[in-house]
Amino acid sequence: MSDAQDHVESRLLPFALELAAAAAPETLRHFRSAGAVENKSTEGHIDPVTAGDRGAEAAMRRLIETHFPGHGVIGEEYGSQGTDREFVWVLDPIDGTRAFVLGLPIWGTLIGLLHDGRPVAGVMAQPFVDDLFFGSAAGAFLRRGDDTKPLAVRSGRALDQASIATTTPQLFSADERPRYNALESACGLVRYGTDCYAYALLAAGHIDLVVESGLKPFDIVALIPIIEAAGGIVTNWVGGNAASGGQILAAGDAALHASAMAHLGPAA
Amino acid sequence: MSDAQDHVESRLLPFALELAAAAAPETLRHFRSAGAVENKSTEGHIDPVTAGDRGAEAAMRRLIETHFPGHGVIGEEYGSQGTDREFVWVLDPIDGTRAFVLGLPIWGTLIGLLHDGRPVAGVMAQPFVDDLFFGSAAGAFLRRGDDTKPLAVRSGRALDQASIATTTPQLFSADERPRYNALESACGLVRYGTDCYAYALLAAGHIDLVVESGLKPFDIVALIPIIEAAGGIVTNWVGGNAASGGQILAAGDAALHASAMAHLGPAA
Repeated sequence: MSDAQDHVESRLLPFALELAAAAAPETLRHFRSAGAVENKSTEGHIDPVTAGDRGAEAAMRRLIETHFPGHGVIGEEYGSQGTDREFVWVLDPIDGTRAFVLGLPIWGTLIGLLHDGRPVAGVMAQPFVDDLFFGSAAGAFLRRGDDTKPLAVRSGRALDQASIATTTPQLFSADERPRYNALESACGLVRYGTDCYAYALLAAGHIDLVVESGLKPFDIVALIPIIEAAGGIVTNWVGGNAASGGQILAAGDAALHASAMAHLGPAA
Repeated sequence: MSDAQDHVESRLLPFALELAAAAAPETLRHFRSAGAVENKSTEGHIDPVTAGDRGAEAAMRRLIETHFPGHGVIGEEYGSQGTDREFVWVLDPIDGTRAFVLGLPIWGTLIGLLHDGRPVAGVMAQPFVDDLFFGSAAGAFLRRGDDTKPLAVRSGRALDQASIATTTPQLFSADERPRYNALESACGLVRYGTDCYAYALLAAGHIDLVVESGLKPFDIVALIPIIEAAGGIVTNWVGGNAASGGQILAAGDAALHASAMAHLGPAA
């Protein structure tokens, strides 16, 4: 194990779980806080999801600045700094803002760590449900309360038996839509409305394919180490690096990944 | 308060919560139980959602037979008996079977009570998340742990500011689809993948409209008392009784309900 890898496993992955714990009270106090009693005034009013996003990202950035001032940070709310550093944190305090706004417990806090530009550790935390998914070279795990279980993808399913998830078909452009539709039609089970949970549950062996488009790096970087450590594959639609976002394809199985890419690849 | 209504509030609604508690261990031990370690053999194999469905419905029916042998029961798994009785229980042990199969905590156990054919009490229980929604003439509530809060719909939103939820647009027939699409396009925020949670969160003031089609009575009966006690409206697409299922429209606000119905009503 390299020194950097050892540092990730012994110090930075545990620190990523501390970041998740620091973000949780900030997101939770705004989740389902509006509803019927929502302040109708928009003058100077910050909506709950923005308040939760900002509070959680600020809490995480404070901890990073205190403990690892030499690290870079890319965040959804407060931008980028030090992106050329050896270690860079990639933060999405609330992935699934529509779910959050509607009171659905399907959003997550995403915390990814890049080492020399490569995703080496990731966390997907859902503190309302108490699901904490995390991964690194040492493995992928789901922690609930005091119970921590290793994650492993499911394999060996043909496309017509496979489940496919996407947050909404409205993610796809006019050019992408027919290709996605062809793939969806070939699958056995389709689910919308999944956000970051789809990737975490693919790592857990419950979902076979996730296909999305228009993702930002902070939507996917944290999920890559979880999927890969569970034995899955996550790339863009032409098999390239997923860490820069855009068109994303995740699969639990190499044959399934190839079948899906055959549908999604650029039109001839 | 009539004797029957008093009986509902003092005895039958508490009993409905006991039914939810009896169903929970049966659903939970099958939720996320398959995944990577799933038994690939289909010979004599019962899939986890069917096992959870049957176990939970059997547990609830046993309690009903023991404590209220004179009541009727309509269940998803074990059929109907005594549907002409004064009190009839309407059970869907796992609403949201796709969510259940995929490991998403968006399914619910639905327990409805009809008195002379009219929904008078209902429960939507999500034991993994620990969300327990229930309603009757005495009010609608969300219980989490020891904390019980009254529910109230949100009102006063115009259609272009409203959120709309549906489990999937694939619920709609070729005839229904354009009418649904027109309504969806007029709304401010759209979410798929919601199952019974959409109705419960409408009662809680987080979602403004829910539109679905092809529902069975056991998909909706339990949710009607929760929505109505929270101040909402739930009917079919032409304003009739929702309790028989089919095309369902729920709204937090009468004006919004009318606007939605104007889009969904039968084509001229």
